[in-house]
Amino acid sequence: MATIRVDVIDIDDPADPRVDDFRDLNSVDRRPDLPALPGGRVGKGLVIAEGVLVAQRMIASRFSPHAFLGVDKRLAELADDLTARSLDGVPFYRASAEVMAEVVGFHLNRGVLGAARRPPSLSVAEAIAGSRTIAVLEGVNDHENIGSIFRNAAGLEVDAVLFGAGCADPLYRRCVRVSMGHALLVPFARFEDWPRGLTALGDNGFRMISLTPGDGAIPLSDAVDAEKVAFLVGAEGPGLSETAMRTSDVRARIPMSRGTDSLNVATAAAIAFYERARSGTMDG
Amino acid sequence: MATIRVDVIDIDDPADPRVDDFRDLNSVDRRPDLPALPGGRVGKGLVIAEGVLVAQRMIASRFSPHAFLGVDKRLAELADDLTARSLDGVPFYRASAEVMAEVVGFHLNRGVLGAARRPPSLSVAEAIAGSRTIAVLEGVNDHENIGSIFRNAAGLEVDAVLFGAGCADPLYRRCVRVSMGHALLVPFARFEDWPRGLTALGDNGFRMISLTPGDGAIPLSDAVDAEKVAFLVGAEGPGLSETAMRTSDVRARIPMSRGTDSLNVATAAAIAFYERARSGTMDG
Repeated sequence: MATIRVDVIDIDDPADPRVDDFRDLNSVDRRPDLPALPGGRVGKGLVIAEGVLVAQRMIASRFSPHAFLGVDKRLAELADDLTARSLDGVPFYRASAEVMAEVVGFHLNRGVLGAARRPPSLSVAEAIAGSRTIAVLEGVNDHENIGSIFRNAAGLEVDAVLFGAGCADPLYRRCVRVSMGHALLVPFARFEDWPRGLTALGDNGFRMISLTPGDGAIPLSDAVDAEKVAFLVGAEGPGLSETAMRTSDVRARIPMSRGTDSLNVATAAAIAFYERARSGTMDG
Repeated sequence: MATIRVDVIDIDDPADPRVDDFRDLNSVDRRPDLPALPGGRVGKGLVIAEGVLVAQRMIASRFSPHAFLGVDKRLAELADDLTARSLDGVPFYRASAEVMAEVVGFHLNRGVLGAARRPPSLSVAEAIAGSRTIAVLEGVNDHENIGSIFRNAAGLEVDAVLFGAGCADPLYRRCVRVSMGHALLVPFARFEDWPRGLTALGDNGFRMISLTPGDGAIPLSDAVDAEKVAFLVGAEGPGLSETAMRTSDVRARIPMSRGTDSLNVATAAAIAFYERARSGTMDG
């Protein structure tokens, strides 16, 4: 039987500073997964995995956990995953559900948390290396939508997610949870220069498809047949900026879906991903 | 200029019993939209619309509001909709944001609520009359998923939603909100006898398609070409019951999407709806 690599440490006092990386998870200004901003306001910039499944995916990802906090039952459920060599000597702080609730600030159904420091960000070129299909988001500032887009990307063979201006942090706990941990596994990067950076996608052979219900858009099914495809997706309501759409090669719409509120942004993206995966199946 | 039909009444005291239909919206056992159960525990069984858009759709629906509570700004935004003859003499309780927060129990960003009594439920036959495409849910007990399914149904030309065993109340406020009010507009009904009631769909000429990632399922795109189609969708995790699947005509899967957590149930349903709408477009 393989050996658990983590160091199990019992925590009885919720004020114990060893579990500070899990403290006040819902606090707007103190939560440990607040990004570390250049200058001025600085967060710890951690990434928090919540629940057994997401913790497993964190262990398998480039976001290597440096500590866990959880109840005994979840420690047992994670036993097979805690044999990874990368976890050598990492502390697993074991606590009762009550102590855990006092640390994190609320009762946590999922019973286990992992914390990781953020590794260096990928560049756009690194994130899209080898990709056939990617998603590019602009103005998507809702964590649940971003989480859903990562989950849908993983489920429908999209290789990377890129962020333009105005998007929320994909490494916020709620986003990672909704993504089922796929925010840690699907490569992503931010454009430094938006929307001008988009030209790099064209240079890399991507057909850039703006998803829009607007006039002049062709049906999605007529747009996805290219070796490499990038779907540009804007926020519900405003949609993509005109400058971003002008940079793209083609505008495509989801037939039947009319009006600004007809589909959620993550659902619209999922349908585009499906149409792309579908066209690949049909060719094969 | 058309006349506003509602009767605007100012409310200064949060304890005013005239706004009881909007009180304690988050209370587990006192919220006004708790269904009225046969015998024993009885809720008021109201339907609550939240925000201008959902209130507009409630006014346009068979769920005719009998009262509103909102701030002055939202009253102005609803002015054009409040000219409907069905609203003759209906009270619009106007309050400050602070008074409103005390009544409902939390600060409500959307600033306006409508309340309606539940009309008699539709029968399955009534709900599906004239339908070409319908969705049938089993074990979907998450309000947000049900809300999303209604929204996706409205956006992708699905005519009705039917509920089998184990589903949550589609008229709960959170569901109605996530549906963008389409839970009030898309006809729905519950099966009295599940899954035996499903045979009525076959008798009505519907091809019944079970969505499942399981072995033996054919690609979705090969399944949707029929005059009338019913998509059977189960909860994430357990999926459809074997008895429900056996009643259906065919099992279909979304290519690429493997594993129990690969797609959210509302997303999987949206992709099925899209494939159906898409095949209609291709024929035409």
